[in-house]
Amino acid sequence: MKAVILSSGGLDSTTCLGLAVDKYSSTNVITVSIFYGQRHERELQSARAVAEHYDVKHFEFNAAALFQPSDSAMLKHSTQALEHSTYAQQLAAHNKVSTYVPFRNGLMLSMAAAFADGFYDGDELVELYLGVHADDSAGRAYPDCGTDFIDAINRAIEIGTYERVKVIAPFVSLNKSQVVELGLKLNVPYRLTWSCYDDGDTPCGKCATCLDRAAAFAANNVVDPALII
Amino acid sequence: MKAVILSSGGLDSTTCLGLAVDKYSSTNVITVSIFYGQRHERELQSARAVAEHYDVKHFEFNAAALFQPSDSAMLKHSTQALEHSTYAQQLAAHNKVSTYVPFRNGLMLSMAAAFADGFYDGDELVELYLGVHADDSAGRAYPDCGTDFIDAINRAIEIGTYERVKVIAPFVSLNKSQVVELGLKLNVPYRLTWSCYDDGDTPCGKCATCLDRAAAFAANNVVDPALII
Repeated sequence: MKAVILSSGGLDSTTCLGLAVDKYSSTNVITVSIFYGQRHERELQSARAVAEHYDVKHFEFNAAALFQPSDSAMLKHSTQALEHSTYAQQLAAHNKVSTYVPFRNGLMLSMAAAFADGFYDGDELVELYLGVHADDSAGRAYPDCGTDFIDAINRAIEIGTYERVKVIAPFVSLNKSQVVELGLKLNVPYRLTWSCYDDGDTPCGKCATCLDRAAAFAANNVVDPALII
Repeated sequence: MKAVILSSGGLDSTTCLGLAVDKYSSTNVITVSIFYGQRHERELQSARAVAEHYDVKHFEFNAAALFQPSDSAMLKHSTQALEHSTYAQQLAAHNKVSTYVPFRNGLMLSMAAAFADGFYDGDELVELYLGVHADDSAGRAYPDCGTDFIDAINRAIEIGTYERVKVIAPFVSLNKSQVVELGLKLNVPYRLTWSCYDDGDTPCGKCATCLDRAAAFAANNVVDPALII
């Protein structure tokens, strides 16, 4: 096993999966999805679908119990509605954005690192892929998406696994349209991915991630395949 | 809430608990224990007992599913016996020690950080205590116990939680007898703690941790209270 992809079933992590399969072939790649109590399980269905598309082994773990104390708007049990104010406004008001999930990327990478290192058989370095990109970390909206965070958690994971596991965040300095540009070249099956904050048969087209996604495809002069019925 | 103690029910983490309660009082401290598939649950009983002694809230989480691929000798499902060779011999033979559990401290700290940050209500910095000490990291036997690891994971946790959670490893540069020296001054209830690799009514007195523990008390000219029936 050469690469573990933290797969949310969304656009960014599926592009990571496409990259890793292109580099290592499907037999050397696995996907890991973490259920953390998110509003709906629609994205996990997409994670399964893209794993099947690429013919890679897929694993799921449940960390929802850890987020019981949190009132993040991303969580099903939250009393908060999804805010329509900008990240800058939310940071000014609450010192965090309403969709921040406590240490989510740190936890997911640590879970994947522990799992990946259990496979170690004496000769391989495992790469752990995370699909964060520069739009997520802009203005420190999501503090666990920037290069400083990735550098620190990568160092912790390298040291803590006898240098056998390392973190790869190939899009940390790219924006979402550049991720899509790369994914289109790799024929990533975007029709199978899910980015919308809501569930349903088709994306809502109105929430923040739907708008970001639409803009990323528009910048590449392509219609989002997930919107073609 | 001011402090979260990662409690194994053993000597080191219980001394952390004593320190934190001394600093912040019991109403501001909680303990978190992680079941990861260890050989026996005896130590979790001790974790509950010391939380009760200090009158702090205690939480337990289960991460055992992540360690299914691992053959660490610390795990109940392992086919490995506990080795009697030295850490240096084990490292030379396998590039790891047989009792290394993949990225255990990184995972536990990440779980506790996610949980702790969920309580955030706008004004507190939470300290996350881990009872690693210098004997654990000597010769890099356990790579996730040294100052370089603690510095890296602390930085990741600080960045990834908007600087609201930080890691405290008060014994990272002390040896076990120095930990005991401090704990004796704090009246830490060592009779309630459990360090032995085996379960049973009393510690075996023969395994590596029993021997380390006995030496630490002997260096302080004290009989281990857990051995007094």
